[in-house]
Order: sequence, then structure tokens, then C-alpha cells
Amino acid sequence: MTQTPALKQITLIGVGLIGGSFVLDLKRQGLVEKVVGIDLDADNLARALERKVIDEAFEEINAQSVGGADWVLIATPVATLPHICRQLAPLLSVHTIVSDVGSTKQSALTAFAEHLGAHLPRCVAAHPIAGSDRHGALAAQFGLYQDKKLIICPHAQQDAGALETVETLWQAVGAHTYRMSAATHDAIFAAVSHMPHMLAYAYVHQIAEHPDGQTYLDFAASGFRDFTRIASSHPAIWTDICMANKDSLLDLLAGQQQALAYLQNLLQSNDADALYRYFEEAQHTRDDWQARQ
Amino acid sequence: MTQTPALKQITLIGVGLIGGSFVLDLKRQGLVEKVVGIDLDADNLARALERKVIDEAFEEINAQSVGGADWVLIATPVATLPHICRQLAPLLSVHTIVSDVGSTKQSALTAFAEHLGAHLPRCVAAHPIAGSDRHGALAAQFGLYQDKKLIICPHAQQDAGALETVETLWQAVGAHTYRMSAATHDAIFAAVSHMPHMLAYAYVHQIAEHPDGQTYLDFAASGFRDFTRIASSHPAIWTDICMANKDSLLDLLAGQQQALAYLQNLLQSNDADALYRYFEEAQHTRDDWQARQ
Repeated sequence: MTQTPALKQITLIGVGLIGGSFVLDLKRQGLVEKVVGIDLDADNLARALERKVIDEAFEEINAQSVGGADWVLIATPVATLPHICRQLAPLLSVHTIVSDVGSTKQSALTAFAEHLGAHLPRCVAAHPIAGSDRHGALAAQFGLYQDKKLIICPHAQQDAGALETVETLWQAVGAHTYRMSAATHDAIFAAVSHMPHMLAYAYVHQIAEHPDGQTYLDFAASGFRDFTRIASSHPAIWTDICMANKDSLLDLLAGQQQALAYLQNLLQSNDADALYRYFEEAQHTRDDWQARQ
Repeated sequence: MTQTPALKQITLIGVGLIGGSFVLDLKRQGLVEKVVGIDLDADNLARALERKVIDEAFEEINAQSVGGADWVLIATPVATLPHICRQLAPLLSVHTIVSDVGSTKQSALTAFAEHLGAHLPRCVAAHPIAGSDRHGALAAQFGLYQDKKLIICPHAQQDAGALETVETLWQAVGAHTYRMSAATHDAIFAAVSHMPHMLAYAYVHQIAEHPDGQTYLDFAASGFRDFTRIASSHPAIWTDICMANKDSLLDLLAGQQQALAYLQNLLQSNDADALYRYFEEAQHTRDDWQARQ
């Protein structure tokens, strides 16, 4: 086994569930000496210090907060990445690794390439598949990544050492790591994550705008609860993700329009046999998936 | 308080989770002396006898299984109701209550009127809002209906005594009862239950038929799990429900087509502000609903 590298300093930009949980586990294992947190929200920083998620707090990206970092971990909504990379560019040491945790990876590589061009080899695009409806430093928890997936999307100029450090530290907190292209990543997560969020929002919006919607909601039960849980997700985060992955989503939305048109046709033509086959095929896919979990 | 009436015999047609759980609670409270179960599945009947969900078992609707019933409770898929009512017609005593538990109520009233015309006053259309992915007599459980909703849809010829008996016994097992027209019921449950099932099946089917769908599914996580849980529902039951409630569903599907077209337009025109507002409105609706549960 290779020894897991220990870092002197991680600077975490965006101190919330995702980044906070990661550094909590690294600290507990002695894999990082100091975590510097940068966040726009002073209250959130105060809570992060209290809970020892971070050791030092800053509200700005500057030489003091970033200069000494072995690794700058950006854990903010994906649309903020270009602006943050622009601010980081003059502050990074040659050896500093820059990595993110965002849900869209082509947009991350574009931001790295456009704003951290010279530093690009040490920029690593990564996406941990974990989360919760909770957010902020108070949501940070030990063990969040145990047996979760972590996708890394190496790029043409990728430095092998930087890639390996990022991969190894995510493995150290329990994640199973996968490498794939950013385009493949974005197609996969458009399909299994971003699209369900859009559909859940769209369905709830339809009920909300119906004249009798509030009465309808009084009778919603467990099926509704689970189907719409992700419509309680943070709208700003999901606006960013959907915009960043819009090409994949437009394809999927067109496919879903066709699916709904097909179902309308089956209902109109009273084709119960075909409707049954359609439902059964979906059920088998869902049951097979569940059985593999 | 009015005294809860005790029945000599309930004949339960379809011995599964829904009807079985109801009679288990009635028996425990001494509100029924004997439960006769009718089911096409002999193994299921054997399990129901073992677990004392029922006291006698029959595979057929006949004078012996139905003749002595104070209440015939039909708990089978909604599309079977006309056929079952036709079989019941010559077998019912004048005083026998006939009731169902189906998810569509206009179709139930139509079946009662068409096949049990003379008996219509004592036919009560009801729908308990409870369920589970489990089914069959083994799934029957005590307490399933505690604090659940039960909708009763009285009709123009409704006998007040039959209505009250059904209502009182559902209340006795813990349900909160509501009265509304069958049309109102069907509009509500199309919106909050039947539509999400169609959408979950349609989404899973789209992934299943994608060339890379199986790879995609390897990376599906908790958002996918909850959004698609209802796509594991029994396809035959849901085919029946969707066909029986197709007018409401066609309206909703047309509305959802418009919603998806609107979202496609927002993505194509890069209108992140409008997308944010749309997601936020849905989130507020979902969060408000959750807070009321």
C-alpha cells in the first residue's frame, strides 16, 4: 500500500456539508494539519470554527487565506467557479492542488483552463456522490463519504501526482473512486441526477399553480413525499447545475416529451396492454437497480 | 359517542395488504366475528388462514362465501370491479353492504350502478390512503390505518346507514375520514398520486431504453432512489388506475408537457433567473407541504 500523503494546509472555499465533511474526516485521520475556511457567511464560519471543521476563518480569498495551501478545495455552487478561479490565479504556489466537488465537470474544466491556464496540470475536477437536504457548516459530519462514489475527470494536461493525491485522500475518507471523461460524467449525471431534479421541480410547480393545488396537497401521501423530496433541494445550486449541463438536459427533456406523448397516446387509445408493458419494463429496471444496491 | 356496530361476517374479496390489514384490526377489536376471504391465489389464502387474517377461505365468489356477509369488501385491482359486481349481484342479501378500497372512485360508482343497480344504496365507494410496496396476505399488518386518511364518496342514492357503518368502522381502525364527490376524489388523486406514478415510470423507462442506461444506473444515488421508488409499484394495479382515471391524467400530462417545454425554453435562452424562480417556487411549495406533515 502506498502511504496516504499528509498535507500541511487545505484551504476550503465554501464551508458546508460537502467540503466540511471531507475535511472533518481528514483531520480526524491526521491527514491534514490545518484547514483554512473561506466563506461569505460570517455566521457559518463561526459555527465551523466552533465545531472544529476549520481552524482558521476568512471571508475573502487573499494571500493570507490561500498562500500557504497545499490544496485549495472549492466547494461552492458550480456557477461560482470561474469567478473564484480568477481570484485564485495570482495567489497559488506552484505546488498547490486546486480541486472542486461540483456536479458538472465540463464546466469545471473550462473554468480551470480559462482562469488557471498555467496551473491547469494541478487542477483536478472531482465529484463526490453524496449529499443531503441539509447544508452549511452545521451539516458537516464524519463518515459522509464512507462507501460513496467519487468521480475524477482527468484532463489532457493532468499532472499525475496531483491526480493521485486527490484520489488517495478521497479514498482515505472511504470513497470508491472512478475515473472518466468530463463529458461522460456529465451525460451520466444529467440522466440519473439532474434530470430527476428538473422533473420533480416541474411536477411540484404544476401542482402549485393549479387552482385547486393547495387542496390537492392536503391528500398527498408517501408516494408524493418520496417522488418530490428532491424538489426541496436548494434552487440556486440546481439552477447552476442545470445551466452548466444544459446540452445533456435538453436531449433528455426532448426524450421525456416523447415519453409523455406516448403515454398520452396509450391512454387516449385505451391501450391497457401496452401501458402495462411500459410500466412493467420500468418496474423491472427499477427493481433490478434496487437489488444491486 | 355512537357505539361502533359489530358485524357477524365480512367477506373480503382480495386478501392482501389493504383489506387484510383492515380486517386484522377489526378482529382484534371484536368488531367482526368472522372474516371470509376470497382470493384466486390458493397459497395466499393458506397464508391468510395461518396468520388468522381470515377465518374461512374460498377461491370463488358463490352463495357459500358471500351469502352470510354483512359487508362484502372488495380489495382487488380497480379494473376487476365490474366483473366482481356482476358475480355478486345474485348473491347479496338485502342488508349487505358492498364497499371497495380502490384508488379511482368514479369507476367504482359506475361499476356499482351498472351491475348492482337495485343494491346501489348499500354500495359505498371508499379509498384508504395507505399502502406499501409490499403486497399479499403476508403484508397485512395491525395499525396500518392509524392516522391515515380515508375518503368516502357518497352518491345520489346512498343509504345513510350503510355510509355510516363503513365510515365508523374505518374510524375504528384509526383512519380520519373525509367525504367528497367521486369526481373531486379522482381529480385530487390523479394530481398527487396517479400522475407521479406515470412520471416515475416514464422517467425510468427513458433511462432503461437509453443505449448507456445500464452504465448510468451504476451511478444513481439517493435522489434517484426516492424519485423512482414508486416505479417499483405493481404495473397491473397502476395500469388499471391510470386507465380508470385517464381523463384527469390526460389533462395533467398536457400540463406537464407545457412545463417541460417552458424549461427547455429557459435552458435554451440561458435564462438562469427565471429557472431559479421556477425552482424556488416549487421548493417553497414542497417545503410548506413537508412542514404540514
